[in-house]
Amino acid sequence: METVRQGERVDDLQRGGLRIIQNEQGFRFGTDAVLLADFCAARPGERVCDMGTGTGVLPLLISARAAGTTFDAFEIQEDVADMASRSVRLNGLESRIHIHAADCREAAQMIGYESVQLVVTNPPYTKGGAGLVSPKQTRALSRSEEVSLEDWMTACARVLQNGGRLSVVFPAPRFLQLCDAMRVNRVEPKRIRFVAARADAVPKLVLVEGKKGGKPGLNFMPLLLTHDENGGFTAEMRRIYGETD
Amino acid sequence: METVRQGERVDDLQRGGLRIIQNEQGFRFGTDAVLLADFCAARPGERVCDMGTGTGVLPLLISARAAGTTFDAFEIQEDVADMASRSVRLNGLESRIHIHAADCREAAQMIGYESVQLVVTNPPYTKGGAGLVSPKQTRALSRSEEVSLEDWMTACARVLQNGGRLSVVFPAPRFLQLCDAMRVNRVEPKRIRFVAARADAVPKLVLVEGKKGGKPGLNFMPLLLTHDENGGFTAEMRRIYGETD
Repeated sequence: METVRQGERVDDLQRGGLRIIQNEQGFRFGTDAVLLADFCAARPGERVCDMGTGTGVLPLLISARAAGTTFDAFEIQEDVADMASRSVRLNGLESRIHIHAADCREAAQMIGYESVQLVVTNPPYTKGGAGLVSPKQTRALSRSEEVSLEDWMTACARVLQNGGRLSVVFPAPRFLQLCDAMRVNRVEPKRIRFVAARADAVPKLVLVEGKKGGKPGLNFMPLLLTHDENGGFTAEMRRIYGETD
Repeated sequence: METVRQGERVDDLQRGGLRIIQNEQGFRFGTDAVLLADFCAARPGERVCDMGTGTGVLPLLISARAAGTTFDAFEIQEDVADMASRSVRLNGLESRIHIHAADCREAAQMIGYESVQLVVTNPPYTKGGAGLVSPKQTRALSRSEEVSLEDWMTACARVLQNGGRLSVVFPAPRFLQLCDAMRVNRVEPKRIRFVAARADAVPKLVLVEGKKGGKPGLNFMPLLLTHDENGGFTAEMRRIYGETD
């Protein structure tokens, strides 16, 4: 079976020699996924689920950060899931990362209820009809809210063990809706990190870690600043991108 | 009637010659109130309510920022309310600031339901029994949750016109509980500003402006940094404290 198809390219993830297949016109991973891979703080040996994995970037990055972690990653778009599967094979990680071409709402039935210690997800961002529209159907589908945020969080919570962590990256303006969707599923937001380009800029993204069955009360981390005065990455962003590894 | 009693002192508010009476061992205003007076962005001529006014610092500061504003300020502790009233007289602001020695839950009946455009409040911070304990009963009472956060927000919402703003300063770790308490009273959090000592420090406080009857969706302001690398106030804090007025 071919590894790289027409219109695709192979990029270096700058982390232990990892490579990833992406589609120039279609589905590519963004900074948000890279931030989440760092924020989620996966622990060695954990069983992890990624809901809406896209290119598979989250399990690939996290596999290099936490030894012995194993992954079930769900992606509803068959061609995107196929591309992610080929990236997994390209890196010889078939024994640790299983890509499922399936709706995340089927995940619990497929891999078991309350079966993982960590769920990571970069959910669809815009409400149906609003926001980004992409010429490529694959990208448009991944960015539309085919599945409501609440249903998405329900799918995440179902596979999560009691006491387990759900780690999410989301637009800061929708922070409360995200927290609502987590809490109706008994996942209490606990660790929070806002992301801003500079200290004097408005935070655009938020990283949220919830604990299933946790008690209310937030632990804020310092603001994550992405850029310095000269427009380059901050030292922390260079660390997150693996440049100081 | 005497203006300043034993154990009290008169401080300069560094704002248009305003002075305030405080009690060295008992009730003094803090940075949080000064931040809220700036954040609430009172508009000229607005009718404002302050729930739990303490020394009266919020109406005093806001009166100097927004011309023609008038205030009903509630303070349940009679001796503290009396001290605030004397500060109002000391500044000749009796026509604009009315201090009520009353429970904030009685405010709507006293001044009218949906009667003000802006409510400001620096609510009690700790849960009953937990947190700060002060040797002075006045301070202990103001810091304990005699009134639940939800009841406090109900009191605030009742006096607020539809479309009016509720501006609150609160500990960042309890941000979600604050938002919950606002939302059950149909006040939707809209404008948010976290406060941290430095860009690399954890935010300790949050400033929240809710809109009565507003739609969900947060507008974040840049992080408010209070201190520079040398431990002094930032330029913005000097502005807020009136040093550049």
